[in-house]
Amino acid sequence: MAPASGTFIASFPASLANSPWERNPMPREAFQSCIDACNSCAIACDRCAFSCLEEPDVGALARCIELDMDCASICRLAAGFMSRGSAFAALVCEACADICDACAKECDKHPMDHCRQCAEACRRCAEECDRMAGLRPGAPQADLLTRPSAH
Amino acid sequence: MAPASGTFIASFPASLANSPWERNPMPREAFQSCIDACNSCAIACDRCAFSCLEEPDVGALARCIELDMDCASICRLAAGFMSRGSAFAALVCEACADICDACAKECDKHPMDHCRQCAEACRRCAEECDRMAGLRPGAPQADLLTRPSAH
Amino acid sequence: MAPASGTFIASFPASLANSPWERNPMPREAFQSCIDACNSCAIACDRCAFSCLEEPDVGALARCIELDMDCASICRLAAGFMSRGSAFAALVCEACADICDACAKECDKHPMDHCRQCAEACRRCAEECDRMAGLRPGAPQADLLTRPSAH
Amino acid sequence: MAPASGTFIASFPASLANSPWERNPMPREAFQSCIDACNSCAIACDRCAFSCLEEPDVGALARCIELDMDCASICRLAAGFMSRGSAFAALVCEACADICDACAKECDKHPMDHCRQCAEACRRCAEECDRMAGLRPGAPQADLLTRPSAH
Repeated sequence: MAPASGTFIASFPASLANSPWERNPMPREAFQSCIDACNSCAIACDRCAFSCLEEPDVGALARCIELDMDCASICRLAAGFMSRGSAFAALVCEACADICDACAKECDKHPMDHCRQCAEACRRCAEECDRMAGLRPGAPQADLLTRPSAH
Repeated sequence: MAPASGTFIASFPASLANSPWERNPMPREAFQSCIDACNSCAIACDRCAFSCLEEPDVGALARCIELDMDCASICRLAAGFMSRGSAFAALVCEACADICDACAKECDKHPMDHCRQCAEACRRCAEECDRMAGLRPGAPQADLLTRPSAH
Repeated sequence: MAPASGTFIASFPASLANSPWERNPMPREAFQSCIDACNSCAIACDRCAFSCLEEPDVGALARCIELDMDCASICRLAAGFMSRGSAFAALVCEACADICDACAKECDKHPMDHCRQCAEACRRCAEECDRMAGLRPGAPQADLLTRPSAH
Repeated sequence: MAPASGTFIASFPASLANSPWERNPMPREAFQSCIDACNSCAIACDRCAFSCLEEPDVGALARCIELDMDCASICRLAAGFMSRGSAFAALVCEACADICDACAKECDKHPMDHCRQCAEACRRCAEECDRMAGLRPGAPQADLLTRPSAH
């Protein structure tokens, strides 16, 4: 498999050949875009939550704020699991995708800019996390995605 | 003060004029580069820790791994405080800068690529966090940096 | 079902009757013992990780340290989701149980006191989290446990 | 100094004599009550935040919710630093005490049970964290508390 381009691979030294990343059945280049999406989503959720608290009708936004909090916290957890190349990164990403989906759906109900931006960040993160979850051993598309050189 | 360029300002809607960010005495454009530095540092620390665990002489890297863990966790906390525009963002950044400094110094003792990359990320993050901490009410340079339009 | 005794119920004011906890289909008394187990497990994992780093053959404990880190971080996340009465508490507990199981199995391989204590805390937490995950809407035993008054 | 009683000491095996805890200039028995106070405070803050979101006038509670979020997150971070016996536990506790103080003061403004319970948990945690911060090398009372056997 040809090495993917991008800052992630560039920062990935040869000395990691035996690292936990190696033991993990996910291709390295799959991580960075998902880590980035998780970090961006966490920021968008935090901003949305605290912007909601300033809106005139906060009561109508209670569920949005709750989901923002859930989503920001699991996104940061997922970023950590992936950064460490954890064997459970895909499992956490699977849960993260579900929470991102729910947060996006809630934000879609509200017209404010911060909700729309948060919904967009959540959808992008859910897509990335779904892709990571698919790389989990036993997941339907895992064989397809993790063993491209098997063809 | 002319608006700073960059994705941060672009994603900052006018509806936030009354947000916690506004109540916080830090200029908005100061946040994003520090959030980015914190997220990058957390990733570098996580990677360094788990790469250290694969090195032949792990015992000699125990303190490095410990500091990596401390540093990754407070960097993610600081990113959250800044994303929420918390009134305590500068306080957390002050502690974060100290931990980044210590982690950089420890990583400087080791020749591996992951340690050198981590040291660099820690130093960049420490600088950004020091700058944020300087914006804390009562900090020496706070008047200078937070009230540019007062001139 | 008679209300459970303990500090949790005692600290649960009537004003929460309309809270997120109420909207969540889990019985209130189910939360506290799981929150406690998660917090105890996080402490045991953190202690195990940093005790492993002091052992003569750290290299043989690398996977134990990695799992300790994963486990401590998701246990604290789960405690937060349950404390907030999040609709996703059971989902996070399900992932937490898997990680606790893996950490217990790894710790069982090592004779040190910190590993044995960590394994015990992980098993207790996995049991509590499995119970919470079972309360998830759609989970096999959910009807049984969440609707005791329906009989 | 006679060893303190309690589950903390009981769970602290002799094999830790050379652990990070030992290198840390804080007496071991000082940790556990502060870890417990941090975990209790995090739970109280999370509950207060999400109970505030259900109150009729959420807008008046926006700052309370913001501080609850800050406080819960730094309390869990501090619990982790202490559990790992981090050299930076006292530094994080110092910041944690400040945030707990602010959260207690805000909660004191509101008559609801969840705010009063949160204020109480925050004050207890601030006291414990202040005590830990005092154990920091260079802190005024550090000599007094960390070297009782020097008499």
